[in-house]
Amino acid sequence: MPDQQHTPGRGNFFEDFHVGQVLQHATPRTITVGDASLYLALTGSRHILHCAQPVAHALGYSDAPIDDLLAFHIAFGKTVPDISVNAVANLGYADVRFIAPVYPGDTLSTTSTVIGLKQNSSGNSGVVYVHSVSTNQNLQPVFEWKRWVMVHKQDLSRPAPATVIPELPAVVPVERLSVPAFVDAGQFETTVTGSDRLWEDYTPGERINHPAGMTVEDSDHMLATRLYQNNARLHFDAFMMKDSTFGRRLMYGGHIISLCRALSYDGLENAISIVAINAGTHCNPSFGGDTIYTWTEVLESWALPGRYDLGALRLRMVGVKNLPAGELQGTHIEQNDKSVYHPNVVLDLDYTVLMPRRSN
Amino acid sequence: MPDQQHTPGRGNFFEDFHVGQVLQHATPRTITVGDASLYLALTGSRHILHCAQPVAHALGYSDAPIDDLLAFHIAFGKTVPDISVNAVANLGYADVRFIAPVYPGDTLSTTSTVIGLKQNSSGNSGVVYVHSVSTNQNLQPVFEWKRWVMVHKQDLSRPAPATVIPELPAVVPVERLSVPAFVDAGQFETTVTGSDRLWEDYTPGERINHPAGMTVEDSDHMLATRLYQNNARLHFDAFMMKDSTFGRRLMYGGHIISLCRALSYDGLENAISIVAINAGTHCNPSFGGDTIYTWTEVLESWALPGRYDLGALRLRMVGVKNLPAGELQGTHIEQNDKSVYHPNVVLDLDYTVLMPRRSN
Amino acid sequence: MPDQQHTPGRGNFFEDFHVGQVLQHATPRTITVGDASLYLALTGSRHILHCAQPVAHALGYSDAPIDDLLAFHIAFGKTVPDISVNAVANLGYADVRFIAPVYPGDTLSTTSTVIGLKQNSSGNSGVVYVHSVSTNQNLQPVFEWKRWVMVHKQDLSRPAPATVIPELPAVVPVERLSVPAFVDAGQFETTVTGSDRLWEDYTPGERINHPAGMTVEDSDHMLATRLYQNNARLHFDAFMMKDSTFGRRLMYGGHIISLCRALSYDGLENAISIVAINAGTHCNPSFGGDTIYTWTEVLESWALPGRYDLGALRLRMVGVKNLPAGELQGTHIEQNDKSVYHPNVVLDLDYTVLMPRRSN
Repeated sequence: MPDQQHTPGRGNFFEDFHVGQVLQHATPRTITVGDASLYLALTGSRHILHCAQPVAHALGYSDAPIDDLLAFHIAFGKTVPDISVNAVANLGYADVRFIAPVYPGDTLSTTSTVIGLKQNSSGNSGVVYVHSVSTNQNLQPVFEWKRWVMVHKQDLSRPAPATVIPELPAVVPVERLSVPAFVDAGQFETTVTGSDRLWEDYTPGERINHPAGMTVEDSDHMLATRLYQNNARLHFDAFMMKDSTFGRRLMYGGHIISLCRALSYDGLENAISIVAINAGTHCNPSFGGDTIYTWTEVLESWALPGRYDLGALRLRMVGVKNLPAGELQGTHIEQNDKSVYHPNVVLDLDYTVLMPRRSN
Repeated sequence: MPDQQHTPGRGNFFEDFHVGQVLQHATPRTITVGDASLYLALTGSRHILHCAQPVAHALGYSDAPIDDLLAFHIAFGKTVPDISVNAVANLGYADVRFIAPVYPGDTLSTTSTVIGLKQNSSGNSGVVYVHSVSTNQNLQPVFEWKRWVMVHKQDLSRPAPATVIPELPAVVPVERLSVPAFVDAGQFETTVTGSDRLWEDYTPGERINHPAGMTVEDSDHMLATRLYQNNARLHFDAFMMKDSTFGRRLMYGGHIISLCRALSYDGLENAISIVAINAGTHCNPSFGGDTIYTWTEVLESWALPGRYDLGALRLRMVGVKNLPAGELQGTHIEQNDKSVYHPNVVLDLDYTVLMPRRSN
Repeated sequence: MPDQQHTPGRGNFFEDFHVGQVLQHATPRTITVGDASLYLALTGSRHILHCAQPVAHALGYSDAPIDDLLAFHIAFGKTVPDISVNAVANLGYADVRFIAPVYPGDTLSTTSTVIGLKQNSSGNSGVVYVHSVSTNQNLQPVFEWKRWVMVHKQDLSRPAPATVIPELPAVVPVERLSVPAFVDAGQFETTVTGSDRLWEDYTPGERINHPAGMTVEDSDHMLATRLYQNNARLHFDAFMMKDSTFGRRLMYGGHIISLCRALSYDGLENAISIVAINAGTHCNPSFGGDTIYTWTEVLESWALPGRYDLGALRLRMVGVKNLPAGELQGTHIEQNDKSVYHPNVVLDLDYTVLMPRRSN
């Protein structure tokens, strides 16, 4: 067989994708309490459902669920070798739904369908839109999301595909949030989180400057990114990255989300689970040695149909490097008459959490 | 509600404490084999009860218990957000009792009672004494301890409280040691530890220079401190600490205890469990890059009432940085006519272990 | 008792060994899912049997087995305090057989027998050959291997022992490979690994340049080496190593094997388990900050008696530091008329894997 057929880890280039194509990603992964402990140690997370089995039981969970973002990063990591190993840029994601809890012992598999393609005018790259679904060993969906990435074209002689651009919702609406029917947050006791601020106490427009900062060493983000089995090389290979624009290893953006979520505990103690990511931008790169801070803006507060125990909050979580959250007024600055992200802003994430309501 | 009521992660200041006050700390924590593995990898511990389930079973334990210090640091970490997040200094601890083993799957919760207060003459800080108890999911106490910390006063207009200074024992006496009735160390085989030195072979006055040293990187101590869910910021935030006296992140003193305990394996192989910490001083700070060494002095050797299988040893464990243990004669030097800790001595811990006795 | 009898962690010197001597090594170790997660996060391994319990079940395993090399390093680490803590050099190993899978919850103990001795002409050191066997809690052997190390002689007045040099096979032959009878790889689906290259598709002489590189920080290799409970000091003590030839901590050679095995996933996706290590050389030292790459040469392809579901491949895995695998033609260069390893080559390992066969 000719060599080029066996370039290991080659991945797919723009011309390898077609609309409707289904990619069943490799490496189904059993998640265990070992993963949970390491994630906790890497992020400093204190979110109660993942820390305390008795609290999870009291709310109706059959076990302490795996941290929402740990499970999501693992599900997402499966797609990297097929979708984004040749990516020029991760352009965005939308409609990320956290459908069901993942428990220790569950095994996640991820499948993606190509839902859109647009070759760039240059002809040497294009945008690929995929819809990914991750299921557990019982074939129950646990996550789904849409993302779009710009991918290199390798064989420039191949014709451009017909342009298809899928519709992408700006927000996962209340009616598409997967609120677990088995949960009864009427049993929630705020002593376990140390804060009595509940759903009613947050007002759209409010901004919370989370006080703590976390310095991230190269060891830390590499350990996390390997735990997620995201094998994109630019996170790990300092020798190769020496000659890149950045001159060094890049921190995985998903890990920044995890750090900000953990840092946001002080001020959002009762945001017990994530139900959606509406949109997200990795505004600037982060590197080993950077210190991450975060602030949150409350965007919307939604009652949930038929639920008096839980409400939803749509939040904007902004990650900042090397500058305490309180020292920045906003995310953008003017540069050459354009509004661009402040160079210290690394994350701008729009997501939705569930929070217990005050019992009457 | 006014903003200042919602400064997240604010903690308590001196004026917020009163004698008799009970603080039920947040974040009950289920400890798993995942925590145990990570602790072993962070410390290099080889203490046999935590490494080998069959050995634990043979001695009467229902499972391999969680390392004494891992469980203790987690129990202790719970108190940080309420007690010491605004501490000027951790002044001391006493009467630390290891009451019952913690097994994988157990969930620890910690409650503290304020047992003493003394405002400083300056008026802008004071000493708070607390008695903390950590219980498992069956409400059985597993640890208790007393500690005193100097805490900032924020509202200087508040009157000084009446001074109450609790009595603190210098040593946990034999009759207060919790020696598990179910353990039968008559079954102990020294091949599992590689040393045949047992309780009878240690003599008060003996000093053991443990040979190994362990260099600690910033990643290592941060990973450990997050595993313990101790969120004191000075361990994690290099950006903030740049402007502190130290100029960099401080290593958590509890982790130094863990490292010294692990390093002390060579020479104390059969010190199978810790039953008490009598007193402890973190003499000097440690930082990423420091290499930790340790020596032990045998202080007392106690037979245990009714037990012919186990004895107790009261030990003094001295931690030293960047100097092999054998190169220091003692812990103190003369400085300006005062005896002070040698600048390389980082830990001076007085604790008590159980060790199997020679069978007759 | 005289002090010198209680030099802790002293280990054995050349004069302490005699042919036929049996050493029952300390610290039996229960391996858990916590170890498995940390190993995965330290190496980036994606080998499917260790990642996905349902895949392991489908092939006939009772659970997802512990990664072959993680279990082996732990079994091997047990021998360090008795055999190689005073080693001048680890000279080689041979006849390493992976006999049975290790599952979470299994406890490994290792025993070594001295099978050869040869004092060096200098008289101040000698070569010790040992045969080590590691068994699980049911006393079933899971690994066996032979190794030889050069060890310091301390008491030079002791006479040289009779020279005994054992026979060491160059390769573990097909008939000595432990191919699990319970495995039925007829059930293997290549979607779980992302590659349809099976046993028939690899040809002796073929070389695979694995594309990825992994930079290793000091934190990373120390965490790994402590996880393996290998306590050789030169991996951990930067203060001591400052004055060594190397000027810094050395990376444990076993961890290099693990990194290369993980990096070799892209190109050997279906090499589901290791059955033998035939020979191995740690050609040059590696240090924190080095980036590891690897290439594989297919040495032999063996059908297995009575098996149509699995074949064996004998592979040569070459580890390279700070130079992508494809940039080196071979492992050796000419230096002063001698052929020596290229200074960037760190590992030359001859091992044997099982790989599913194409079903007819």
